[in-house]
Amino acid sequence: MSSPVRVFIATSLDGFIAGPDDDLSWLPQPTPEQDYGFGEHMASTVAILMGRRSYDMVAAMDEWFYGDTPVFVATSRPIDDPVAPTVRAVQGASAADLLSEVQAQAGEGGIYVDGGALIRSLLDEGLIDELVVTVIPVILGHGLPLFAGARFRRELELTSSEAFDDGLVQLRYRVEV
Amino acid sequence: MSSPVRVFIATSLDGFIAGPDDDLSWLPQPTPEQDYGFGEHMASTVAILMGRRSYDMVAAMDEWFYGDTPVFVATSRPIDDPVAPTVRAVQGASAADLLSEVQAQAGEGGIYVDGGALIRSLLDEGLIDELVVTVIPVILGHGLPLFAGARFRRELELTSSEAFDDGLVQLRYRVEV
Repeated sequence: MSSPVRVFIATSLDGFIAGPDDDLSWLPQPTPEQDYGFGEHMASTVAILMGRRSYDMVAAMDEWFYGDTPVFVATSRPIDDPVAPTVRAVQGASAADLLSEVQAQAGEGGIYVDGGALIRSLLDEGLIDELVVTVIPVILGHGLPLFAGARFRRELELTSSEAFDDGLVQLRYRVEV
Repeated sequence: MSSPVRVFIATSLDGFIAGPDDDLSWLPQPTPEQDYGFGEHMASTVAILMGRRSYDMVAAMDEWFYGDTPVFVATSRPIDDPVAPTVRAVQGASAADLLSEVQAQAGEGGIYVDGGALIRSLLDEGLIDELVVTVIPVILGHGLPLFAGARFRRELELTSSEAFDDGLVQLRYRVEV
């Protein structure tokens, strides 16, 4: 597969990717000593495709996580004052179109997809190849659900699981098609 | 701790304990060769406390999973024709009352709590000691959420994680109070 499409995401044990009011305070901060595999993931990523809501959330943060990697934001609204020179808007009639557009522009290599609604659409269209889900040791009770509203049941194949010292567990799956 | 209160439950990767229409067909069937630790869990359990909905679901199944262990069903409705002689109804003004009643009747040993609403109430009251959550390699998209509507954020301490050959991952947590 020349351009695997990957999700790299953290979830609470009860399956939320953000708490009430987009609360992300429960997410451990990666450090240079422990980045939970994010650096390795980015090293094999040639482009990022994210939803507008995700972009607005990361753009409001103090840190920019994506270095020089191009970040395509799925949005019909203009991005005023983009937070990095690598950010550009992308449009498409469907999630599949968006992905094709990014793949055409980015060339060969991993595509990192982020954002609940976008991930769900791509999952439903069978376009996600790999999921890396890091389970944070917390119960949130409410929030933004991981893959919420996926229309189809998807079988997964576990390819690895790794527990970190601070209680995070990273699960890697291939999505079966 | 003389009577630890434990949850032993399976969830889809996206945090559902049952699919749409209470679908449980995605759950692997335990076998004598591979029971995913259930036998060991039951060996340290002196009583089970479950919600009425859970009881009605397990009572409709071909198999009875709980041997001779007393099963207390939290219900205000009579249980006609109980599926096993070990089944009895229990009532209480709160989840804490129900648990005290079961602990008083069962004596010392682990209490296994089952059922979404009951688990949520006990979690909210800080009465769950240990969670054993087995993540099934499937995305369901919809269904009955694990701990849905827990009112309080709960920090957890990972005590072990184990991947099985068929891709299930069992996570054990102590609930921090």
